[in-house]
Amino acid sequence: MAMTLAGTIAAVLTPLDDNLQPDLGEHLAHCQRLLEQGCDGLSPLGTSGESMSFSIAERKAILEALLKGGLSPDILLPGTGAASYADTIELTRHALSVGVTSVLMLPPFYYKAVNDDGLFDAFSRIVDGVGDERLRICLYHIPPVAVVPISHRLVGRLRAAYPGIFVGVKDSSGDFTNMTGYIDQFPGFAVLSGGEAMIKPILEYGGAGSITGCANLVAPDIALVTRHFRDPARAAEVDAAHHRLARARMAITSKPNISVMKAILAQQTGQATWRQVRPPLSPLDDAAVQPIVDALAALGTHA
Amino acid sequence: MAMTLAGTIAAVLTPLDDNLQPDLGEHLAHCQRLLEQGCDGLSPLGTSGESMSFSIAERKAILEALLKGGLSPDILLPGTGAASYADTIELTRHALSVGVTSVLMLPPFYYKAVNDDGLFDAFSRIVDGVGDERLRICLYHIPPVAVVPISHRLVGRLRAAYPGIFVGVKDSSGDFTNMTGYIDQFPGFAVLSGGEAMIKPILEYGGAGSITGCANLVAPDIALVTRHFRDPARAAEVDAAHHRLARARMAITSKPNISVMKAILAQQTGQATWRQVRPPLSPLDDAAVQPIVDALAALGTHA
Repeated sequence: MAMTLAGTIAAVLTPLDDNLQPDLGEHLAHCQRLLEQGCDGLSPLGTSGESMSFSIAERKAILEALLKGGLSPDILLPGTGAASYADTIELTRHALSVGVTSVLMLPPFYYKAVNDDGLFDAFSRIVDGVGDERLRICLYHIPPVAVVPISHRLVGRLRAAYPGIFVGVKDSSGDFTNMTGYIDQFPGFAVLSGGEAMIKPILEYGGAGSITGCANLVAPDIALVTRHFRDPARAAEVDAAHHRLARARMAITSKPNISVMKAILAQQTGQATWRQVRPPLSPLDDAAVQPIVDALAALGTHA
Repeated sequence: MAMTLAGTIAAVLTPLDDNLQPDLGEHLAHCQRLLEQGCDGLSPLGTSGESMSFSIAERKAILEALLKGGLSPDILLPGTGAASYADTIELTRHALSVGVTSVLMLPPFYYKAVNDDGLFDAFSRIVDGVGDERLRICLYHIPPVAVVPISHRLVGRLRAAYPGIFVGVKDSSGDFTNMTGYIDQFPGFAVLSGGEAMIKPILEYGGAGSITGCANLVAPDIALVTRHFRDPARAAEVDAAHHRLARARMAITSKPNISVMKAILAQQTGQATWRQVRPPLSPLDDAAVQPIVDALAALGTHA
């Protein structure tokens, strides 16, 4: 059964030991906590999960460990994008081989100023190379990091050429109009916000939900907004959570956000393996994150 | 023996068959032609070589085929950079294992806005992880593509921490002041231009040479400038070649340059495997490149 690409999906962080190897036990425990906090799905090995700092073999091992730990493949949306479409094929085939049929997929991101013909060709070769009808792709539009975009025109071409495969997009552009554009043009296409402040507006516009890094810290508020934004009786509660999310994001992204979130999780869980990040990211010490911890506490964020 | 990081080094293109697999025979023949045309060294598997569109296994196989074909490891400077430092370690260890001790190395390039501490940590882990005193690294500064830069401060820290390892930089920024800054601050550090118009000025300033894609088409002019820029008796000839190079680059980069160069090589050699590029790049047809062919012919470029 394919994952339902909707609701509250956490872009799961990856704890690391002193040798920067994944702490697979704590990773699994964190995933289980996120589900208890209201997440509908988990997206490991995305940008927040530092996927691009792991080797192909390491990425496979991390996914396998989550499944071995008992997580259902039907709630997982691992990132399988890579700079080379050849590596993306390998990672996506691997995910399918272990029962995970929905994946989050970056465009090939090394070469810049490429055109939609080249990107269409890349995604075509990936779908054809994977060669599995079960495959469901959530495209990943994150121009601040990948630089290479997923244009509306490209989505239209891919959906026309491969009906049923390209089921949604995670939009981390921060551009609300870009998100509403996907919704307006592609009925049935799941548009998920990559940022917390836009979760409520995009749900109200017809979006499917969110896939966000801050869910590692504030999943209960995201789940509250996502489940109840249509309920007039809970409007005040939902609005309060929405405002907390916008402010939490501002606080968390005031410094490099992956390092911030991991330092806070280290404090919250007492697990030292949350303190590590793989280079080129740099860890932050407690003093550096204390103002952010204080800001989140002042918000009364449900974390 | 380590490669001498100086002179005319070609950033070698990679011919591809209809399945986008490397045409290893033509690749080798092209490398041999470039050496006959005056190149002192060859840098396969860089940006021009579409390295980032190959898998790790494919990158290893391409390097091995060049060595098996008889190229000396002492003239090769393969690109071993990758988005993940873990993959860079694997590729660099592989190069050393087949006798190639000098490599061109990108910074980890997926995460943006990273700081020099994180990049220093990444390169440290690579050097320590490779663990081979023979290693010589030419750093690769190409902000238009990788976005992540190699700052002067980073070079200084790496050279202080690892004497003898970080021997040079390929600068494809197009920023002449950035190049002269490396030269001024780091005596004995080989600074090589990544663009053709700056080859003569950077040699005159004290640079070591160039590593450029256009060398695939105009190696004789580059070799002429590089060998004779100090000879007053040949000043007019050198100047003419320098002007041709600047104009050739303008012409070649008027459209996506890797596709342009490959289309022209297909015409020149009659080998169809030059027509292919891996996505996300797109091939160009003869009509699209004809104006560029005409421009190069009008220049009287030695190609």
